[in-house]
This record gives sequence, structure tokens and C-alpha cells, in this order.
Amino acid sequence: MSSSLSQQFYTELKQTVLIDPHSHINPLAAASTSLADLLGYHYYTELSHSAGMPKATIEPYDGKPLEPKEKVHRLIENIAPLDNTIQWSWMLELCRDLFDWKEDRIDLSNWERLYDQSAKICAAPGWEDEVLKRSGVESIFLTNDFDDPLAGFDLKRYIPCLRTDDLVFHLARSSVQTRLAKCTGIAPSNLSSLNNAITKLFEHFTKHQARACAISLPPDFCPSEVSDADAETAFSRLLKSGEANPDLEAKATISRWVFWTLAKRCSDFKLPFDLMIGVNRQVYPTGVFQGQDLYDSRVSLIQYSKLFNAFPDVVFPVSVLASVTNQELVDYAWIFPNVVTNGHWWYSNTPSIIQHDLRARLEAIPRTKQIGYYSDAYKLEFILPKFNMYRRILARVLAEDFAVARGWSEQSCLALGKQLLRGNVETIFKI
Amino acid sequence: MSSSLSQQFYTELKQTVLIDPHSHINPLAAASTSLADLLGYHYYTELSHSAGMPKATIEPYDGKPLEPKEKVHRLIENIAPLDNTIQWSWMLELCRDLFDWKEDRIDLSNWERLYDQSAKICAAPGWEDEVLKRSGVESIFLTNDFDDPLAGFDLKRYIPCLRTDDLVFHLARSSVQTRLAKCTGIAPSNLSSLNNAITKLFEHFTKHQARACAISLPPDFCPSEVSDADAETAFSRLLKSGEANPDLEAKATISRWVFWTLAKRCSDFKLPFDLMIGVNRQVYPTGVFQGQDLYDSRVSLIQYSKLFNAFPDVVFPVSVLASVTNQELVDYAWIFPNVVTNGHWWYSNTPSIIQHDLRARLEAIPRTKQIGYYSDAYKLEFILPKFNMYRRILARVLAEDFAVARGWSEQSCLALGKQLLRGNVETIFKI
Amino acid sequence: MSSSLSQQFYTELKQTVLIDPHSHINPLAAASTSLADLLGYHYYTELSHSAGMPKATIEPYDGKPLEPKEKVHRLIENIAPLDNTIQWSWMLELCRDLFDWKEDRIDLSNWERLYDQSAKICAAPGWEDEVLKRSGVESIFLTNDFDDPLAGFDLKRYIPCLRTDDLVFHLARSSVQTRLAKCTGIAPSNLSSLNNAITKLFEHFTKHQARACAISLPPDFCPSEVSDADAETAFSRLLKSGEANPDLEAKATISRWVFWTLAKRCSDFKLPFDLMIGVNRQVYPTGVFQGQDLYDSRVSLIQYSKLFNAFPDVVFPVSVLASVTNQELVDYAWIFPNVVTNGHWWYSNTPSIIQHDLRARLEAIPRTKQIGYYSDAYKLEFILPKFNMYRRILARVLAEDFAVARGWSEQSCLALGKQLLRGNVETIFKI
Repeated sequence: MSSSLSQQFYTELKQTVLIDPHSHINPLAAASTSLADLLGYHYYTELSHSAGMPKATIEPYDGKPLEPKEKVHRLIENIAPLDNTIQWSWMLELCRDLFDWKEDRIDLSNWERLYDQSAKICAAPGWEDEVLKRSGVESIFLTNDFDDPLAGFDLKRYIPCLRTDDLVFHLARSSVQTRLAKCTGIAPSNLSSLNNAITKLFEHFTKHQARACAISLPPDFCPSEVSDADAETAFSRLLKSGEANPDLEAKATISRWVFWTLAKRCSDFKLPFDLMIGVNRQVYPTGVFQGQDLYDSRVSLIQYSKLFNAFPDVVFPVSVLASVTNQELVDYAWIFPNVVTNGHWWYSNTPSIIQHDLRARLEAIPRTKQIGYYSDAYKLEFILPKFNMYRRILARVLAEDFAVARGWSEQSCLALGKQLLRGNVETIFKI
Repeated sequence: MSSSLSQQFYTELKQTVLIDPHSHINPLAAASTSLADLLGYHYYTELSHSAGMPKATIEPYDGKPLEPKEKVHRLIENIAPLDNTIQWSWMLELCRDLFDWKEDRIDLSNWERLYDQSAKICAAPGWEDEVLKRSGVESIFLTNDFDDPLAGFDLKRYIPCLRTDDLVFHLARSSVQTRLAKCTGIAPSNLSSLNNAITKLFEHFTKHQARACAISLPPDFCPSEVSDADAETAFSRLLKSGEANPDLEAKATISRWVFWTLAKRCSDFKLPFDLMIGVNRQVYPTGVFQGQDLYDSRVSLIQYSKLFNAFPDVVFPVSVLASVTNQELVDYAWIFPNVVTNGHWWYSNTPSIIQHDLRARLEAIPRTKQIGYYSDAYKLEFILPKFNMYRRILARVLAEDFAVARGWSEQSCLALGKQLLRGNVETIFKI
Repeated sequence: MSSSLSQQFYTELKQTVLIDPHSHINPLAAASTSLADLLGYHYYTELSHSAGMPKATIEPYDGKPLEPKEKVHRLIENIAPLDNTIQWSWMLELCRDLFDWKEDRIDLSNWERLYDQSAKICAAPGWEDEVLKRSGVESIFLTNDFDDPLAGFDLKRYIPCLRTDDLVFHLARSSVQTRLAKCTGIAPSNLSSLNNAITKLFEHFTKHQARACAISLPPDFCPSEVSDADAETAFSRLLKSGEANPDLEAKATISRWVFWTLAKRCSDFKLPFDLMIGVNRQVYPTGVFQGQDLYDSRVSLIQYSKLFNAFPDVVFPVSVLASVTNQELVDYAWIFPNVVTNGHWWYSNTPSIIQHDLRARLEAIPRTKQIGYYSDAYKLEFILPKFNMYRRILARVLAEDFAVARGWSEQSCLALGKQLLRGNVETIFKI
């Protein structure tokens, strides 16, 4: 019974028009132009590399990018070892649903036909609109560099989000200082000018309908307040020590000060502050592009307790990288009014982990405090299969844990599902 | 097949009369007098606060407690966002089974009727007996302060348990010293008198049929033996430094010494020592009453290996706060004769986590070493729905993992279930 | 549907002839001679001790081993409390499938008959061949001490594996130094001779068809390169300090240097390096033989990132002791070409944990990089029930997650299953 019910719920949940609350879409080139844009996604290049494809096959030493069709050819040559992965199933579903692909497999015997077919479809006028329509997506959050002009696109469809990793962790780089000076007109030469520059960013972003500030954080980061006096000293030492050989203690102090200042501005400008907790960058530095990051799962949300206490009026949508942190996330969201759960991030975005984490969330956190899912997509075409994966799991959990186990009506189950898929995105991000 | 079988097992398991091995029942006011006693449970106030209800709504600034009916009214106004939680399902089941409530929901349209109906039922003579009868409960362990007189109640029905958090972690407080002096007649002015006072407590409790000593422990606690000489010095420094500004190193030393001394007395008096491992108090200090504690899941039972080795004749029923520690608990109970698993505590007391933890326990720990469940209840009425939740999961695991997967007979499955529900409580706590 | 399909898959997967990639079989006495060899397995003695059997009952104080039949008698007397464990289910299945045992239970009423029956079967000529035939096993990896002569057995059937714990962690012991000198002809008196002796071991093992180097590692081990100069100093200090009171800092340095040198030799000799990560030895030092080890689950594969980066041409089949580390293992194998997953080790070798860990692996790691299972057996008879347990879970996951959830054909599901069971053992260990 629960199996047919879950199928029915899945069909119903697909009717909900989505607002995707986190992506890496480039709004000036949101849809793909060919299969190369899709197969070039790090999920495929890194898995293919992990299965034995040399990095040079896909990222030639001479630095010249491969011709798109050749890139696809090379990846398809190495794709068989990945065909069990859920990531590959996204590709198959995407091709079926968006590129009218009828075959069960994509391999050396048929990829060229798929390539040509998809290129034709992608080149048709209005493809971007068509993908969104077929995917049931209304608008999508972006991940914008702090110096993004936020111009040239529809701010209703593509919702800006101020990404702040560079400000918190890379302020020692002169390139970051220069970019900050250029986009704000304020050279960050001391703490006060740095503070003013940050405020300018929030003004720019909120003027352009930004709905969130966001950051990804390493496992050992532990935010706390830094006095302006300490920060002033640290900033001056950081600027003096320079990029090549930065004063590491000063750098850490400034990271904490900037992070805390961002939280203050989120409070002032009434922006939720998305925390994506737990990633170590460049653990595998010779891996393929974007396939180098991993983590240490020994992280605790207790590291964020001072933050959650200090900013009761800032909403923190929190993503954790490893499933072993999910119970802490559930329990911090269970107690703290300003902590909400946000999607299933990256290494935790596979079915068995989503199901585990989702069940724990649905049974213990108020329903208003759970943002079900985001695509994290780099190209529009991935939103469909990723959300479908999530909707299948959500449908199953609603069927098993609510309809069957608790006797909930179908209507009540679907109302809960739709709230996770869309309703909470609207209320939490004030859309 | 496993689904109807699990339903059948559930019905059978409800026939076992329970001894609830851990609760916070006040034996002088064990049952509720109105819905306010039940909705005032921290599970509802903290979730409601987390979902947006200001603390002042339920804990007025003037310090005057709310009139019970008004308290319920305010909570019901804010209850809709919690209706997905398993905690709320306990309330619905409790009202159906104990207060003859026939409706699917409790909301602003009907709560007053429920309030009046339940108040009438609670006020009937013999309600306490009736709750126990309907809940199939014979006796219940208490959580008694060390200076509890243990008088005025039936020691067969309400079994004392010496709770020792204050002694281990708060001995720097003069109020604790005063209470200890008052109830034992021994002022703890040096190590020897402290030792004697502790022994007095064990005499008092065991004379009153206490069946366990218990304590909750923070994640960073790591018990080890402290020499009397070191403890003497530390105690004298602690007393000298005073409550407001205690000598923290001396405090930590005394914590370890008192804890180790408690284990010695458990050995002498043949009491099991319940360890509830992993809670950080007041992580959210401005939260509602009892809704302020969380944890750091980075804890290991290896911190307790010296203890388990040093006291082979003391049984340690261990509860862990986070499911990520459950496998360690399973494996320490698999090897150490004196480690037994004890229920599903607090943040791990939700269905998906219980199922995960229970399956791992049942497949790898001797069946004699598993205490299935305790209610942790503050009022008698909660024992029924909480144990029902557990029994449903236990029935399902027995059906799937034993009847279907291993071909066990129904009788064998039920015998195992009953041993977890009751038999082991009797043998482990010698009842 | 998925339940009958999973039964069908199980039957099909049993047709695959196995190469067991990790065991503790003694090739000179591979099969059992009586039930005492099987019930004496630490899984039963430790669980029985944990359930209350005094250590002296099974390991008499006088040091004289028990007569085999008496040993079995004593264990059967204490076996009832373990009958729920999966470990005990292995024994029942083994007796049914190998000793023609028809009864549901083994207890005091019938054990003697089983004992005699099994002794007769074990004594029949060709029993070793018969066990392997009935178990569908072709060859088995051993765990050889570094000074094992590797003589007297069929190197096709029993594949040597160089176990290196003693070299990395116990080189301070004069017995280890003496053994090394004796088997290589090189007394390890300085770094250069130590290096040469290690190389000799690799020559000896690879000449005898060894297919892997292996080691088990404590949770706090963090490999890194040590300069020869630092290692030379440390080794000289270690030799000088002696076994009874070794220079601990020097010992730690030498551990890291030897470990790194082993990785270099694995590269030179093209051997995979099996890492079994996470065990603490002798946590319960007064436990029964081999029933004393536990762990601290707070370990991260980030501790191995330098190693994985430094040896891109060495394949590291990694086992983790606790399921909370499985997601890290999945994700490191997802990114690093030289990290592959290896079986379900020890405390994670129980059904609910295998299922959890397997699902996460199958959905996110290239199919070529997963070694499904190894028996870890001490006697041949255990290979059958342990692999059956794994095959049942594998069959179920293939049915639910691939056939039903993703619409894979039966043939595709089985091909994936067989690759995990055998194909990857052949390709990864070059058999």
C-alpha cells in the first residue's frame, strides 16, 4: 500500500511550482548549449577521474579547453564505471525528460546522436523558458560574488544571494581587496573602511532583491565576537604581512570579525544567513576542477551556539555536509527559533542519506522550519532530476511515516510535502 | 506479511505489564490535574518557542505563573507548526486513550472542550490508579534529588533512584553543601566528611528501596581515579575559592573524585549506576524552562573505559544522547560484561532514530543486556504514548529482522520483545 | 515484489565463486577439526563473557587449554543469552549447511550430538576441499606475519598478504627486531638496514604471490612523511631506550617513517595497501582472548589525505571500524582515484550497519572501486554464513534501490552484484 501511495504522492508533489533556494546558475547563461555543459559538471568529471580517467584527458596540460564535442566523447569513453551512481541517473533522467532521449543507456554507440539532438534542442529559441516550464520552476536563487553587478537579468526569476566566502576567508588576498575597493568605492585600509565597504555590499544586494547572504565554512571554524580594537590591530597586521605570507593569527581574527559583522548586517538588512557547514577545500589538490574538496566529519553545531544566541533576529538556514551532523542540526533547529534546516548538501545529497536525514527532520522539527531542498545546480537542466530524486524520497517518507504509520490523510501529507518544497522557501526568505 | 505481523506483535507486546526504569515523576503529584500539566511539558513549550512563540508568552516577565487554562490557550494558539512532530503525536494519542478524545486534531476550535473534559477526568477519584491501569504500568523509577526524604509515597509503585548531578558538578555551590549537610547531618568540610556524607546518602536511599544511582554527564567528562591526597587539596581549594568564582581546576578534580566515589558506593551497595552521557546544559540560556540544553556529538565511550575496567561488579546502564554514539554503545556492551544499553534518551527518542539504534542493538548485544525503554516522563499520562511508540518500533523490528529475515517463530520474537520491555528491568535492577 | 526479487537475486548471487579478500585462515590448518575450533572464535567467547561467563571458565587460570569437548560444553551452557545475535545465527547456518544439522537450536539437550556429528564430518578425508566447494570459494587471502615462511601450502588457494602492524607499531620490541633479523638476514641496527630489511620482506612476499600489504590502525594515527635524518635520530633513540621504557616520541616518529616506507614499497612492488582504520587495542585488557579491543569513533580520513596524495599509484582498499566513518569513506573513494572501499569490518559487520553502509556506497562510488565483502574468518567454515549474510543484504539493496527504484533489469542488477562480490577483487588485487 505504501508503495502505490508514495507513487501517487510523487505525482502530486510534481505539481508544486518550485522556487529553488540555492544554485550556482549563471543568469546570463542559465541553460546549457550542449551536452558538454552538462557532462562537464564536476560530479561527472570527478567520478570519472576517480574511476581512472587521467585529469589531463579532460583538462589538457596546455590549458586550452577541449572542443565541447571532444570533451563529451572523452567522458563517455570513461562513463561505464559510474553507471551505478545516482549522479549518473540524474543525467539519464534529464536526457529523457528534456532531450527526448528514449534509450536506456548513453554509451559510445549512441552518444553522438544524443549530442546532436540535445544541441539542437538547446539551440532552439526560448530553451531557457522551456526548461523552467518543463521543470516546474518559477525562480532560482543565485550564488553571487560580492562584486557581482547583478545586472542584465530578471531579478524576479533569478534571485541574488550574497556569497561571502572571499570576504571571510580570503581578505588577505590583494585581488579580493581590489575587487572590494572597486565595487564599493571604498579601499579597505582600516577596520572602519572595511566595515563601510561591507555595508555597501548589503545595500547593493538588497537594492537588487537579494534574499539571502551565504557562506560555506570549514569544520574547524568557530565564530565568536571580536572586539573592534583587536580586529583593528589584526587587520593592520594582516595588511602589512601581505598575501604571500599572511599573519595567520591575524587572518583568523579577521575571519571571525568579518563573519560576525556579516551577521550584524544580516540583522540590519533582515536577510537570512545561509550557513553551509563543514567543507575542507583542496584536500585533493591535483584533482579535477571542483573535484578537490572533502571534509572532516568531526564538527559540531556547538561551535555556532554563540552565534545563534547573539543574533536571535537573524534566521540561519543551515546545511551540513555529513549525515553524522544531521541529528545535531535537527536538535538545534528543534530548540533555537532562528535555526532552520536547509536542503541536503553535496556529499549528503544521495538517496539513502537524504531519506535518513529527512525522516529525522520531519519527526522532530516544527514544519515551518524546514527548507526541503535546493538544486545546487550549475545549469538549469539539473534542477529537474535532482528535485525529482528528492520528491521521490519525500513522497515515500510521507507515505510510510505519516499516511501509514500515523494515519494522516492524503491531503495532510501533501500539505506537509508542499510546505517543505515551496511554502517555507517563501516564508523564510520573504518572497 | 511483515506489516500485519508487526501489528500483531504490537498488540501482544501491549499485554506486558511495565516497570518504567526512568522517569521524572513526582510521586506526590504523579498524575496531571489538567491539560496544562501536559502541554506545559518542555517538549511542547520548547518546540512552540522554536516555532516562533515568544518566551514571555508562556513564561511571563513578572514571574507569576499563568493561570492553567490561559497557558493551554496560548500554547494551542501556537501549536499548528508542531503538528508534524512525533512529540505532538504523543499528545493526540494520550488524549484519545486517556481522555476519550475522538477528534483528529486539537486546535482553537475545540481545545476548550478537551480542556474541560480532561480536567473532569483528572479530578475523578483514583485517576492516578486509573492511568497506571490503562497504561499497563506497575511501577516507575523516580529521579530523586540526593536530599529527597523519600517519604509519603508507595515505595513499591515509585522506586527511588539517587540522582547525583548536583554532587558531581555543583558541589561548589553553597546551597548544595547546605543541602548535603542538612540531609546527612554531616557538613562536608573536608574529604573525609564528604565521603561520609555520600555514604549516608546511599544508606538512606537503599533503606528506601532505591534501585539505581544515576547521573547525566557532559560530552567532555572523562572519569578517572583521583588520589585522596589530590582530592583533599582540591576540595580545600574549592571551598576556599567559593561559589561565585570557583577554582575551576579544583572543581574538575572534585568532580572526578566524587564521581569515582559514587561508583565505589554503587559497588558497596550493589546499585546499578545509570550513565546518561552527552548533554551540554544551557547552550541556549534564554530558551524556555528545560528547553535550553543541547550537546556536542563528539563524545566517545573510550572516555569511560577506565571506569568500566575499574568497577567490574557495578552494572552501568548507559544512555547516549546522540545516535552517532549508538554503535559505540552497542560495541562496548558487546564486550564489557558490566555495560548494558538503556533506552532511547531525549533527542534520540524519535522513531527513525530508535529504529536505527534498536536494530543495531538487537543484532549484536546479548539479549540479557538491553533495557528496552524508559519514559523519562514528568507526568504519568505520558508513559502510555511514549511506550506505545517504542512498542510499535520494537514490533516492527522483531517482525522484519527476526520473524521474516531469520525465520524465528512468533513466540520466540515475542519472548525477546518482552525481555527488553520488562524482563531485563527486573534482572538488571534486581526487582 | 522487491521481497521475492531479492530472494531470487540472493539465489543467483550464490552462484558466483568467491575469492575472499581478507581472512585470518591458517593455511596449514584451514578447516576445523571439531566444534571447539568454531565456538572458540572470539565472537562467541567474548559475547558469552559479556553475558556473564567468567573468563576463567573458558581460559583457565592454570594456563592449560581446555579439552575441546569440555570447552564446547562450557560455552553451550552460557549460549542462551546470545541467541538473538547475528553472530550466533552464523553458527546455526554453518551447522545446517556444513554439518547437516536439522534442529532449530543448539542447547544443552542436543549439543553433544552435534559435537560428535561435526567431529566425524570434519575428520573425513578431504573436508577442507569439501568446505570450500560447498561454500563456493576458490581462493582466500591470508593475514601473514612479516616473518611467515609462506611454505607448505597452495599459493593459488591461499594468497599471502603481508601484515605490518608489528613493524609499524611494535618495532621497539626486541622480539620483533629479532624476528626481522632472522627472516631477512639483516639486523635492523640503523635506518638503512631497517629499510633494506623491509625491502627484503616485500621481495619474499611478492615472490610468493602476495597480493596485498595490510595494517590495522588506531584512531589517532595520522601518517605523514618523516625525513630520513629525523628518522635516523629517532631510530637510534628508540633502540637505545629499549623495550621496557621506550622513548615514546621516537617510537611515534618511527611508526610514521615505517608506515610511509611501506607505502613506498607498495608502490615499487605494485601491491595494494589495505588500511583497516580505527581500532584501539586492549581497551578491556582483562577480557577474553581477542575480545579486548574497541575504538574511539572520532576518526577522520582527512588524517590520511597526505598519504592518498603522496602515493597516487598505490591503491588503498580502506576498511573503517565504525559506521559513522562510512560516509567519509564513500566520499574519499568518490574523489580519490586510489581509494577503494573494502568490505564491512568487525564491529560494522552486522546486518543493519552493512545495509546502511552498502546503500551509501552503491549510490555514490564508481562500481569498479568497491570490494564488497571479506570474511575475516579464522576457520574456513565461517566463510559460508558470513558471505550469505552479506549476499542477502546485497540482494535486497539491488532489488530495492536498483530494480524497483531505478528500473534496472535483473541482469544489470546481478552484474553489479557480481562485480562487488568477485570482479573487483580480481581487478584491484590483480588476480
